[in-house]
Amino acid sequence: MLQFTDIQAAAERLKGVAHRTPILTSSTLNRMLGCEVFLKAENFQRMGAFKFRGGYNAIHSLTDAERARGVLAFSSGNHAQAVALAAKLHGCKSAILMPSDAPQMKLDATRGYGSEVITYDRYKEDRNVLAKQLSDERNAVLIPPYDYLPVMAGQGTCGLEIAQDVPNLAALIVCTGGGGFLSGSTVAAKALQPDIQVFGAEPQAGNDVQQSLRTGKIVTIDVPQTICDGQQTQSVGVNPFEVIRAHVTDILTTPDATVVEAMRFAFDRLKIVLEPSGACALASLMANKGRFAGKRVAVTLSGGNIDFARFAALLGA
Amino acid sequence: MLQFTDIQAAAERLKGVAHRTPILTSSTLNRMLGCEVFLKAENFQRMGAFKFRGGYNAIHSLTDAERARGVLAFSSGNHAQAVALAAKLHGCKSAILMPSDAPQMKLDATRGYGSEVITYDRYKEDRNVLAKQLSDERNAVLIPPYDYLPVMAGQGTCGLEIAQDVPNLAALIVCTGGGGFLSGSTVAAKALQPDIQVFGAEPQAGNDVQQSLRTGKIVTIDVPQTICDGQQTQSVGVNPFEVIRAHVTDILTTPDATVVEAMRFAFDRLKIVLEPSGACALASLMANKGRFAGKRVAVTLSGGNIDFARFAALLGA
Repeated sequence: MLQFTDIQAAAERLKGVAHRTPILTSSTLNRMLGCEVFLKAENFQRMGAFKFRGGYNAIHSLTDAERARGVLAFSSGNHAQAVALAAKLHGCKSAILMPSDAPQMKLDATRGYGSEVITYDRYKEDRNVLAKQLSDERNAVLIPPYDYLPVMAGQGTCGLEIAQDVPNLAALIVCTGGGGFLSGSTVAAKALQPDIQVFGAEPQAGNDVQQSLRTGKIVTIDVPQTICDGQQTQSVGVNPFEVIRAHVTDILTTPDATVVEAMRFAFDRLKIVLEPSGACALASLMANKGRFAGKRVAVTLSGGNIDFARFAALLGA
Repeated sequence: MLQFTDIQAAAERLKGVAHRTPILTSSTLNRMLGCEVFLKAENFQRMGAFKFRGGYNAIHSLTDAERARGVLAFSSGNHAQAVALAAKLHGCKSAILMPSDAPQMKLDATRGYGSEVITYDRYKEDRNVLAKQLSDERNAVLIPPYDYLPVMAGQGTCGLEIAQDVPNLAALIVCTGGGGFLSGSTVAAKALQPDIQVFGAEPQAGNDVQQSLRTGKIVTIDVPQTICDGQQTQSVGVNPFEVIRAHVTDILTTPDATVVEAMRFAFDRLKIVLEPSGACALASLMANKGRFAGKRVAVTLSGGNIDFARFAALLGA
């Protein structure tokens, strides 16, 4: 199982490389929700999301010989950019397998970091098969997005910073898709603040982690229909689930409409940009505020990568 | 003339009350502009703009007897909210004279801080006459938006923090309308870093401060047609101009199109929300980048109060 020492080692590697992102507070938000909220602004992280932490730690943890082979990742989202940027910083070749209909902005950003982008048809081809085939052909090292200890340890450094910067938390809410961010942050937060309760946050339409935690075994669902495109995973990873089952109190869910409300609050009052999955944890707190009345609660704002046209469409401009 | 000791005293009063806003950096921006840029994010200030600093310092500097009379301000923008919030924090009554066609969001925000909002018809009534009449009737203390030493000293605490947080700056660019923010920040920055060159930033369509500095006397223009609604002043204040003429190197200007470009860059890459005047200093750097090649330049991002519909319309969603 992921250990706290893995996260401490990742934090050493990320020092001076990843941003130590700020904790934001808002007295308006505290009044609205009836609790004291601390927002970890990972939308200000390098490449715009927490994923940089895991991607960098994973590539840094490879041997020189492995890095010389180059790395491969598959992702339609932030993991692609994270691996691309982390590879560039290590002077290492990277190839990213992305759906041909991924947003142009994300294709461009990944290429902009110097990666070779290989597109596939997500309706006809199986990306797992393709990734295996490509990594064999190229002898490249595959960097999985969440079910992989070095990635989990890297993401955990975010929870570590929260627990270091905000004492005496009653609860921490972390968004979850494959579980890498939630599991890593849980191990770190519990190590520093043993009494903290950690909650995952999922879109209501894709509550597989909630089902998995409540039944005690990994549940697989159809690709969920939600605006939270960073959380359209069908099932949680095996390694993350080991941590989640042991240490996470519960998974909160939120309807998409509340996610949009959280994005709008962030724009209007916090003056920051959140992508839907980046607003999911805050939305989950909004949708479940009764549970946290009067408490000190930290919430991850996990990313801000969204192009303006989509942002405007979601907010109804 | 405004003295550095006035700003130091204001900084003491604002300690623990105003946010010490962060300095943001972006390697993409540095590459784009060919210089090293430090962005002071005053859009994260209380009530969403630097104006809180001056409003709070002004009300705090009154005597108890003056505060008991209540305060009055006229503003269609951020000074209204600043005085409203500062008055509330001092347990003091406030009335704000606002144009009846001011954005609903700003009317609501000002009322939300507990102020009485008095509206007038900006096409038929003279706000100076009305303000004088109202303050006489009510025996209230008028808090001017910029041509007033306690306001200038408060705004100067922003320049003070920049000069404390970013050593060895070659230049500082501060947006300007009436000149309170520019003059206060100039005095503070020059006190701590005597070799720094300070520049104002204005929309091209409303370059009265540039004309005033270049001719050595205050020039008055028609209400400028610009999207930068925080800078539609017709002339710089007398007290600010005394500082500007003595210590400011030059005034940079920017077309509105570059202001929109800066707002878009802030959204896409910095993940933050800027109102047009809040992006004016950054846009002025973009429009004059050749002048700062290879240098360390600090830039104020002065505010983020814009409703989403207008933001979307400006960015062309």
